[in-house]
Amino acid sequence: MSSRLSEEPELPDSAAARLDAQLAFLLEIDKLKLVVRRNELADASRRENTAEHSWHLVMFALTLAEHGSPRLDVARVVRLCAIHDLVEIDAGDTFFWDEKGYQDKELRERAAAKRLFGMLPPPQAAEFEALWEEFEAAQTPEAVFANAVDRLAPVLLNAHSGGRSWRENGVTAEKIRSKMEIIARASPRLGRVLENLIETAQAKGYLGVAP
Amino acid sequence: MSSRLSEEPELPDSAAARLDAQLAFLLEIDKLKLVVRRNELADASRRENTAEHSWHLVMFALTLAEHGSPRLDVARVVRLCAIHDLVEIDAGDTFFWDEKGYQDKELRERAAAKRLFGMLPPPQAAEFEALWEEFEAAQTPEAVFANAVDRLAPVLLNAHSGGRSWRENGVTAEKIRSKMEIIARASPRLGRVLENLIETAQAKGYLGVAP
Repeated sequence: MSSRLSEEPELPDSAAARLDAQLAFLLEIDKLKLVVRRNELADASRRENTAEHSWHLVMFALTLAEHGSPRLDVARVVRLCAIHDLVEIDAGDTFFWDEKGYQDKELRERAAAKRLFGMLPPPQAAEFEALWEEFEAAQTPEAVFANAVDRLAPVLLNAHSGGRSWRENGVTAEKIRSKMEIIARASPRLGRVLENLIETAQAKGYLGVAP
Repeated sequence: MSSRLSEEPELPDSAAARLDAQLAFLLEIDKLKLVVRRNELADASRRENTAEHSWHLVMFALTLAEHGSPRLDVARVVRLCAIHDLVEIDAGDTFFWDEKGYQDKELRERAAAKRLFGMLPPPQAAEFEALWEEFEAAQTPEAVFANAVDRLAPVLLNAHSGGRSWRENGVTAEKIRSKMEIIARASPRLGRVLENLIETAQAKGYLGVAP
């Protein structure tokens, strides 16, 4: 399929070439719907995929932004949320609690970013890759907030679906607390939400126990 | 689960109450992942759900915005794309080519909007409902662009997955052309993309034939 129509000279070649590349990219990233994460949906009917998780994060950002820093650029948080997991198309989902998987996660994801964002026209490729880098570095207020909702979302789902992935992988309350301080950094109120979710999950026996 | 902690007076009650309502909303909209659409993924492995479709639209908007009007507010297009199908949680997905389903679609979706957005704190409830109304009215440049990518996305997937939902439902090239003029209105270039996709699909026998 091509959007280049030689009989239409009013369409500059460069715009047509960019559009072809963009459509190929949009078709390629359809594969994110096939990447399955560890946590289940809230109703525990099945595991979540990364594309629907990314949509849910966009909604978290749009809904909860008021609890972040007052000068937060919400539109940028939304971009970070939508784009941050695209690398999983090649690199797969690395389970948050998989220490071995995390050893080569950066290498695998960097190669994926090169290939996937490299499908886009150069200025846009650089722009999207920079958003992914910003999310990974977690330094800007927007990246901190996006990382915070990325951590909070599966906790909310696990706390309602029975926490199967926590129990099966020995994820304890202490492990969650130690790895999720970025939530309180993004928003003290969301930090309290996390603590309440952990306490509720623990009371219900949804969490793993220390070996 | 509650974020209201009576021993922490520095947290104003109203912010805590808003946060509780917002978390309940975010948990409720997890159900959009269970709404199954007619079209299949690009690899034809299964049908698409509305949550992952909504994410894909966000990516269409971020990637293709340059082909719309130069003054397009992309952040607003993204909000429209993320929110526009939430009503399907109650109203279900109405197949684009189901004329009978479209007769009471507005009624069903309006009731769904009242219930779902009504879960949010009042100013946010009104803001989100206004975004949904804006998408449905398809009058602002942002809503026209969001509607255009909402039409274009399943055509792109169908044209690559074999067009099963087109063939099973007698969707012809003429039907597509007559219902999708909003794509060319949003962007003449995207209008040409649609025409190329239709021609390719027709050549491959992916489209329905007139009875």
